[in-house]
Amino acid sequence: MAQRPFAIIAGVGAGTGAAVARRFAKQYPVALLARSSKFASELVSQIEADGGIAASFQANVSDEESMNLAFDAIKEKFGTKCAAAIFNASSRPFPKPFLWQSQDDLAYGLDISLGSTEFVPTLIFTGATASVKANAWMQPFTVSKHALRALSQTLSREFEPQGVHVAHVIIDGVIRMPLTRLLKLFSAWDAKLDPDAIAESYWHLHAQSTYSMTSEIAIRPFCETW
Amino acid sequence: MAQRPFAIIAGVGAGTGAAVARRFAKQYPVALLARSSKFASELVSQIEADGGIAASFQANVSDEESMNLAFDAIKEKFGTKCAAAIFNASSRPFPKPFLWQSQDDLAYGLDISLGSTEFVPTLIFTGATASVKANAWMQPFTVSKHALRALSQTLSREFEPQGVHVAHVIIDGVIRMPLTRLLKLFSAWDAKLDPDAIAESYWHLHAQSTYSMTSEIAIRPFCETW
Amino acid sequence: MAQRPFAIIAGVGAGTGAAVARRFAKQYPVALLARSSKFASELVSQIEADGGIAASFQANVSDEESMNLAFDAIKEKFGTKCAAAIFNASSRPFPKPFLWQSQDDLAYGLDISLGSTEFVPTLIFTGATASVKANAWMQPFTVSKHALRALSQTLSREFEPQGVHVAHVIIDGVIRMPLTRLLKLFSAWDAKLDPDAIAESYWHLHAQSTYSMTSEIAIRPFCETW
Amino acid sequence: MAQRPFAIIAGVGAGTGAAVARRFAKQYPVALLARSSKFASELVSQIEADGGIAASFQANVSDEESMNLAFDAIKEKFGTKCAAAIFNASSRPFPKPFLWQSQDDLAYGLDISLGSTEFVPTLIFTGATASVKANAWMQPFTVSKHALRALSQTLSREFEPQGVHVAHVIIDGVIRMPLTRLLKLFSAWDAKLDPDAIAESYWHLHAQSTYSMTSEIAIRPFCETW
Repeated sequence: MAQRPFAIIAGVGAGTGAAVARRFAKQYPVALLARSSKFASELVSQIEADGGIAASFQANVSDEESMNLAFDAIKEKFGTKCAAAIFNASSRPFPKPFLWQSQDDLAYGLDISLGSTEFVPTLIFTGATASVKANAWMQPFTVSKHALRALSQTLSREFEPQGVHVAHVIIDGVIRMPLTRLLKLFSAWDAKLDPDAIAESYWHLHAQSTYSMTSEIAIRPFCETW
Repeated sequence: MAQRPFAIIAGVGAGTGAAVARRFAKQYPVALLARSSKFASELVSQIEADGGIAASFQANVSDEESMNLAFDAIKEKFGTKCAAAIFNASSRPFPKPFLWQSQDDLAYGLDISLGSTEFVPTLIFTGATASVKANAWMQPFTVSKHALRALSQTLSREFEPQGVHVAHVIIDGVIRMPLTRLLKLFSAWDAKLDPDAIAESYWHLHAQSTYSMTSEIAIRPFCETW
Repeated sequence: MAQRPFAIIAGVGAGTGAAVARRFAKQYPVALLARSSKFASELVSQIEADGGIAASFQANVSDEESMNLAFDAIKEKFGTKCAAAIFNASSRPFPKPFLWQSQDDLAYGLDISLGSTEFVPTLIFTGATASVKANAWMQPFTVSKHALRALSQTLSREFEPQGVHVAHVIIDGVIRMPLTRLLKLFSAWDAKLDPDAIAESYWHLHAQSTYSMTSEIAIRPFCETW
Repeated sequence: MAQRPFAIIAGVGAGTGAAVARRFAKQYPVALLARSSKFASELVSQIEADGGIAASFQANVSDEESMNLAFDAIKEKFGTKCAAAIFNASSRPFPKPFLWQSQDDLAYGLDISLGSTEFVPTLIFTGATASVKANAWMQPFTVSKHALRALSQTLSREFEPQGVHVAHVIIDGVIRMPLTRLLKLFSAWDAKLDPDAIAESYWHLHAQSTYSMTSEIAIRPFCETW
């Protein structure tokens, strides 16, 4: 029996990750990778209530063994025909001493992600303002986001000639989430990014023809003042 | 009677311009601005045959009076509710002495474009590899494309807070057109950009929510080697 | 008799231009191009009082004929062995409608500059924050500065293999000048750029070996907050 | 007794590191950090023969304890008045699997460098073409060089207001060294970068006034074709 293609979303929180999962679930069964299973389980229920197919898998993207176990479980559940992989995991952008763990282990997680499936036509990484702008007191987040962008670009050069679309999305603003509503952080609600609108752009990147591919987009709300 | 929104495509040649016109014609009546009316007339017929509404207007984007006349004619035909304006006009990227005419007059054309309609929610400029890369012997094309990109960015900063989506598309490759097929220029046919696929990305930019806007994309074929 | 090499500084105002002229006058006779001869004449006197050789030439960099006359006069005075040409002329960065005159004519001035001398080993252009950043309401200045940078880059690609060092200097801050002192514009005096210190970096660019050349630098005061 | 200021060069190989050490030794006693002491010892002898003061310290920049020991030894020998620190250590740019060790530990080394001395007015990092360009098969080198550049930029934003000049030098070409001569790698000898000329630009960065600072330069030979 022909396998049905599915999508993997690594890193599903209340913002971009959940919205991208819902958007891709309109077309594909989705495998959700999350460190904590609570939010991911609720998201699975929500997607199923909307008629989609989803399953959550607990995994720590910075732990190679944890990722291996998760990919084994994904294969058993969905097979090997991965149509798109979205890497949305991230360290928290709060000021702190140099911490590189999530950054260097990210490489392992990614390597596994590419290596464990037969073929991934689309691979999308989630970046941030810090991917292209270097602010003071933000060394770990800035350096890891710059590094992730470099990784995306080198993977793009290496795998696009093989037909893999590797793209990097710079989320250049604050996303509407329960947390950012509660804290009224940084900007008014109207000035915040709509995660469902972001997810449409992720889907457009996946839907692009191989004869017209974009390897990076930045996303801003209309009232972002830069 | 409520006016129906329409789109303007300035610069309709056999590649991106025609494809973008066909794509936007699925949703809107389209006003085509072209220096020569022959190709534009055929495109009007083709769009009408597909069930769309189109009209062509002869205009020289580097001549203020010519643009004024064209915009008067557009208003009479389609009204003032412009939903999207695509600026695809360009000088030819062939080596030649410093020529700035199309570049400085472009500013007038654009100024008119913004000034003559009630409100343009989307304004898209077509750039090229030369918008971000400076090669030898290409001074006029490179300088004008860099300048167009700067213009797009400053307009974006000025008009996005008012809800206008200003975007810049870097066409980073050779487009499939009769001319490029004939001349087998630069690269194999498979390595060339599909203009219909490009047009989908123009449409996606127009369709983006104001709460998640992208101000620049680059488009490449999968086998572009950079 | 062997000619003595000299330097041309086009655009000598109270800030960068005068400081660069003084710095290069420590090594070379300098030809100063200025639209108004008053300030340039005073600068000539000052340089001569310091033991240097200088002469001012009235010229409008946006007027081809004016530039031709000035270059004829320079040749008669200093010969044809130009060691360095600094293009420091600029339109004023004040908000105003699209004005391209200084920008497109700049190309003529430059073309003449390169064409009228035997060989120019160093060609330096003065840019601004607007060369790389696009702010609202600043279209003419931003577009012309982006265009000048693109011109510098394409000239660099074309002429560096011939041993010409083409460099672009981004002055990313407010310069200490009588005008900026008077107006207390934008920032404290301590936060402003020292033009003599800037001139040292122009000189370093000129002094770089052809086996280790820099084609762009940005200059900021230490307390610039970006 | 007033302490004499000294310079630290971390990473002294036959190319940039040695040349920078020789250049700074014209002005300061220099402390050389190297993984292997053989080349560093010869360099010390060479600098002393030229009338300079130098001492080498064995250290592994990716090992916190090793760096602590080296900084203790430097303090004992030269005191705490460090005038400039040049971070020239690097992993090798050869294709290989993801390796982050030198990269993430680099952060520790740097932190120690800043923390162990009283005050470092100049801190210069050595980058490469891979700092700004992402080629295929070069993930580890590209990602670490992008990360190092991001680190330099964030440190610049944080420490420049305190008067520390943090700069990043992109060595965009092959350097003349015994190894590159032997292997005739990539380009002709004439097309290669002269390390002594590079060192002059490092010195210029150190000599820049705090009222006119450059935070990044790229260095190319004149015949670099990009």
